Amino acid sequence: MAPFPKALEQLVTEFSRLPGVGRRGAERMAFALLTGESEQTVSLVRALERLHGDVGLCERCGFYTDEGRCAICDNPSRQAALLCVVETPLDVIAFERAGGFEGLYHVLGGSLSPLKGVTPDDLAMDALGRRIEENGVTELILATSPSVEGDATALYIARTYGREDLSITRIGRGVPMGGSLDLTDGATLRLALEGRRAFD
Amino acid sequence: MAPFPKALEQLVTEFSRLPGVGRRGAERMAFALLTGESEQTVSLVRALERLHGDVGLCERCGFYTDEGRCAICDNPSRQAALLCVVETPLDVIAFERAGGFEGLYHVLGGSLSPLKGVTPDDLAMDALGRRIEENGVTELILATSPSVEGDATALYIARTYGREDLSITRIGRGVPMGGSLDLTDGATLRLALEGRRAFD
Repeated sequence: MAPFPKALEQLVTEFSRLPGVGRRGAERMAFALLTGESEQTVSLVRALERLHGDVGLCERCGFYTDEGRCAICDNPSRQAALLCVVETPLDVIAFERAGGFEGLYHVLGGSLSPLKGVTPDDLAMDALGRRIEENGVTELILATSPSVEGDATALYIARTYGREDLSITRIGRGVPMGGSLDLTDGATLRLALEGRRAFD
Repeated sequence: MAPFPKALEQLVTEFSRLPGVGRRGAERMAFALLTGESEQTVSLVRALERLHGDVGLCERCGFYTDEGRCAICDNPSRQAALLCVVETPLDVIAFERAGGFEGLYHVLGGSLSPLKGVTPDDLAMDALGRRIEENGVTELILATSPSVEGDATALYIARTYGREDLSITRIGRGVPMGGSLDLTDGATLRLALEGRRAFD
């Protein structure tokens, strides 16, 4: 295979580093830019340059925003009393894409992990405590990831902020929609049994 | 779905314009850059900025190159007497990836099309004539695309540059490797019958 010109090879390498992009996909993308209007490359560069400068985190919940508070916190029709605690901004996007949740979010910025040296001080824990106090939160939904760290983080939050007038729940776990039982791992099946609900 | 911050949405839109990238793929790519090291975004921007400035066309064959002649024309082990005529630089890459061809290429820059107003003057036809004269070409392989325009271009070249001491061939056409006969269109099957060869 004849070597590509250096600048082309470099771009293919950079595209390949992105998730879900293989070598051939990266080549197609680079060739499209090379053979297309240079205007397209210019707009892509402009969008990339704005990314880190313009996209910040919401001062209240930690989700992505252009400025100050995010679009979710700014929406007056969302219920401030219902607070869903997640690990990352991407989790917020997943819930919003699923739809149906009318409360607000709180992004921790990760999960507790003694192994990786992540302590409560490294996460937005104090801010969570303040929001529970100040915003009249009545239900706290713990939507940290279904993993050892996620469970430990949920347990820490429940122990630290639990009190009588605050209902604390953990998101349901079990077999996913469309999942095939015989291909589901044992840990998930045990969770599905534990999480069984009355059939109505 | 809560709106993304503008800069993020803009980047997702730009990524979506690339071939083979859907909305979800574009989001994954944008999030990876946003949550990853900003260094990665910087190198991607640098590679994009160099693309149009640094990648040019080989002054002899029209393939991509960093400067002057391309890596294929510069390779002394390739046979200058065997010349493969293609429409675009991407066709060269396809042949090089397949391997096995030891000659040189000539990139026309497109195919003849009265409908689109593409005449021989818009393609690298004169340069092809000069190369045949000056480089002692003995076999000209016409690898223009298998289409009406590609066939017309091949015919034009054969009529214009045909002479006794130059062997002119057209690449074989028929059913592709791994192709299923009952799913192959009639035009291809007729080409496959016409292009049959003695079985040895």
